[in-house]
Amino acid sequence: MEKEKIVLEIPYGTRDFLPDEAAGKRVIENQLADLFAKWGYHEVVTPTMEYLDTLTMGNGRSLEPHMFKFFDKNNRTVALRHEMTTPIARLVSSRLKDRAMPLKLSYISNVYRYEQTQTGRQCEFYQAGVELMGSSSAAADAEILALAVRGLLRSGLKDFRICLGQVEFVNGIMEQYQLTSKMKEEIKRSIEKRDLVGLDELVDSLEIPLNAKDCLKKIPLLHGNEDMLKSAYEMALNAQSRRALDNLSEIFALLESYGVGRYVAFDLGMIRDFNYYTGMVFEAYTPGLGFPLCGGGRYDHMLSDFGNACPATGFAIGIERILLALERQGIEKPASAKDVFVAYHEGKIAEAITQAEELRAGGNVVELSLSPQTEVEARACQKEMGYKKLVYIA
Amino acid sequence: MEKEKIVLEIPYGTRDFLPDEAAGKRVIENQLADLFAKWGYHEVVTPTMEYLDTLTMGNGRSLEPHMFKFFDKNNRTVALRHEMTTPIARLVSSRLKDRAMPLKLSYISNVYRYEQTQTGRQCEFYQAGVELMGSSSAAADAEILALAVRGLLRSGLKDFRICLGQVEFVNGIMEQYQLTSKMKEEIKRSIEKRDLVGLDELVDSLEIPLNAKDCLKKIPLLHGNEDMLKSAYEMALNAQSRRALDNLSEIFALLESYGVGRYVAFDLGMIRDFNYYTGMVFEAYTPGLGFPLCGGGRYDHMLSDFGNACPATGFAIGIERILLALERQGIEKPASAKDVFVAYHEGKIAEAITQAEELRAGGNVVELSLSPQTEVEARACQKEMGYKKLVYIA
Repeated sequence: MEKEKIVLEIPYGTRDFLPDEAAGKRVIENQLADLFAKWGYHEVVTPTMEYLDTLTMGNGRSLEPHMFKFFDKNNRTVALRHEMTTPIARLVSSRLKDRAMPLKLSYISNVYRYEQTQTGRQCEFYQAGVELMGSSSAAADAEILALAVRGLLRSGLKDFRICLGQVEFVNGIMEQYQLTSKMKEEIKRSIEKRDLVGLDELVDSLEIPLNAKDCLKKIPLLHGNEDMLKSAYEMALNAQSRRALDNLSEIFALLESYGVGRYVAFDLGMIRDFNYYTGMVFEAYTPGLGFPLCGGGRYDHMLSDFGNACPATGFAIGIERILLALERQGIEKPASAKDVFVAYHEGKIAEAITQAEELRAGGNVVELSLSPQTEVEARACQKEMGYKKLVYIA
Repeated sequence: MEKEKIVLEIPYGTRDFLPDEAAGKRVIENQLADLFAKWGYHEVVTPTMEYLDTLTMGNGRSLEPHMFKFFDKNNRTVALRHEMTTPIARLVSSRLKDRAMPLKLSYISNVYRYEQTQTGRQCEFYQAGVELMGSSSAAADAEILALAVRGLLRSGLKDFRICLGQVEFVNGIMEQYQLTSKMKEEIKRSIEKRDLVGLDELVDSLEIPLNAKDCLKKIPLLHGNEDMLKSAYEMALNAQSRRALDNLSEIFALLESYGVGRYVAFDLGMIRDFNYYTGMVFEAYTPGLGFPLCGGGRYDHMLSDFGNACPATGFAIGIERILLALERQGIEKPASAKDVFVAYHEGKIAEAITQAEELRAGGNVVELSLSPQTEVEARACQKEMGYKKLVYIA
C-alpha cells in the first residue's frame, strides 16, 4: 500500500493537466501558433535537453543551480532547457546560419527551472514565444512588442499592461558615475528586486556627488507615460542613457501605428532576470496576478557568443499564467464540443458503428458506447457525460 | 573556436526540427488531435519526468537501462518518461480515479529512450496516442484499431497494413506444454525477434512431443487472413489460445463494420516489446520503412499495479515516422502559406504597419519589412522569401 501511494506521486514542481486544463492549453497554444504564423514567424522545435555549456552561453553560470542536470552516456553534462532563447540562438548559429536575414522564428515548448514553486510558477512550465534575428532596428522591437500585445489579446485577455524599459538607460547612468563592476551588479539587483531601502543604503555608501546619489535612487521610480521620458532625459546627463530614451520614443511611435500604444507604460527601472539583454526589455502584467504573463527584450550579443554576430529581439508568453489569468478574471475558456452519444441495443453494434462514423464524417464529436444498453441507460449516460444529443439504435 | 564548436552541438539522439520540419509536425499533430477529439477522446498532459518507481510499474525493470535518469533535490530517482501509457495509468489511478468509466484519453507528447539511433529512431521522439480505460469488450479494442487506421489515413498515408495478434494465443500454447518461466521468456524473445533458427534450436532442446515442437516452431509463420485463424484454431488444442482466436474474430468483424478490415492482417507471432500487454496487440507497417508507424494493444493488469483494477487498451503513433513515411512515399506535406510581403519607402513605415495589420485581420500571412527599401529591393526580397504578393508603400 505504501508502494502504491508513492508511485502515484509526481516529482516536485511538476503537474498533470486534466482534460479541461489540457483543452484550455491546446486552445491557447493553437491561437498563438496561428497568430505567429500570420506574422510570418516560422515554428522550430529543439531538443528538451542541451549540453550545459550551450545553455550557459548567454547567461554565464548564474542560472546553473536552477537547472535539471545529468550526464549523458559519454559523461558530458546535459541539462533540461531552462528557456528557449539560447537553444534557438544555437540553432540559428548552426544549421540555420546561411538563411537570409532577418529570420523570424517561433516556438511552443516546455522549459524547466528548479525553483520554489508557487501558483503560476512550476519547475516544468510551458511557453510560446518568438525570436527575431538579424535586425537592430526599432521597427523590429516594435514588431515584437506589438505581437506580444496581439498574443495576449488573442488569448482572450483584455486588461493588461506592458511595462517597457531599456537596459542601456541604467547602464549609462552607472557608467557616468564610474561605478565598479561589483557595485553596478549590486545596484542592478536592488533595482530588479525593487528593494528601495537596500538601494538607498548601497548608494549612500558610494563616494559620489549628492546629485549623482539622487539620480541613482530615483531609477526605480521612473515609470509613466511619454512625459516621464522627457524628465528622465533631463536627469541622464550621458549619451548612452539618452540614446536609450530616444530608442524608446522611436519604438513607442511605431506602437502607436500598430494601435497598441495604450497597452504600454514605460518603466526605466525594469531589469529582467536574464543577463543577456542589451536594449529594450519588457514584461506584461495583469490585475490579480503577481508575476508577469510575458517578458522579453533585445539581446544583441548572445549570437556572437555562438560565433554568429547578429542582433536579436524576442519574447516568451507563459501559457499556464495566461490560463490562470483567464480563470481569475472569469473569462470563459472555449469548452470542447460534445455533440452526439451513439448507443445501441444488444446485437446492433454494427449499425451503431456505421452511424457514428457518418456523424464524425459530418464534423461531429461522437462517442460510441462500448457495450449494449437500454434506451433509458443510454439517455442517462448521455446526460452524465454531457453530450448534446443521443442517437439510439434499437 | 573549439568551445564555439562544442556549444553548437546537441546531445546524442536528439534533433532540431527546422521550420519546414516543424510545420509538418504541427500539421500532423493538429490533425490527430482533431481526430481524437471527434471520437470523444480527451487530451491530457503529464510531466516530462516521473519517479523511476512509477515508470517501472508496468514493465518491471527491463527498460530501466534505456531511461534518462537523474536525482531530484530530495535524492529520489526520477526519469524522463519512456512512453505515455504508464504515466496515464498513474493519472487515471490518482486524480481521475473517480471519473465515470469508460475513460477515453489522448496525448501528444515527446518521450525518451536511450538507444542506438537510426533513421526514424531517436532518443527523444514524439508520439500521439489514445488510452481507453474501463472496458474489456472487443468493441473497445475494435474502436482503438479503427481509430489507429483513421489516424494513419488522416495524416495522409494510403498504403499501410495493421498486423494484429493476441498475446494469449502464444501464452496458451506454452501453458499447454507446461514450459518453465525461463523457457517461455526465451521462446517469446525468439518469436519477437523473428529469430527462426534460434527458435528451432530452443524448441529442439525441449523434452516435449514432436507435434508440440512443430506447433511452437510454426508460431512465427502464422500470418494471413481469417482463413489462417481457422487453421490456428485446429493447431491450438487449449482453451486459452482458442479464446484468443475468438477474440480476434470478434474484433475483426467489428473492424469490417468500421470499413477498415482491408487494412488489417493477422500475425499470431506478434509480441510487442512491452511486457504489459494482455490481449490483442498490433503494429502498423508501411512499405519502405523497416519499423512500425504505430503500435498498441490491450493491457488489463497495469492499472491494478497502481491500485486501480481496470481493463485498458490503446495505441501510440510515431510522429517522426509518419513524416518520414510521407516523405519517402512522395506525399506532399501541406506547405505553410506565405501571402503578402509588405515593404515601404523611407518614412512610410507607419502606413506600412497599418496596411500589414489590415491584411492580417483579413486572414493573410503577412511579413512586414523591418527597414525601408526601394521597390526593386522589395520585389527581390518578396521573391527570395517566397511570398505570393508584394504590397509596397511608396
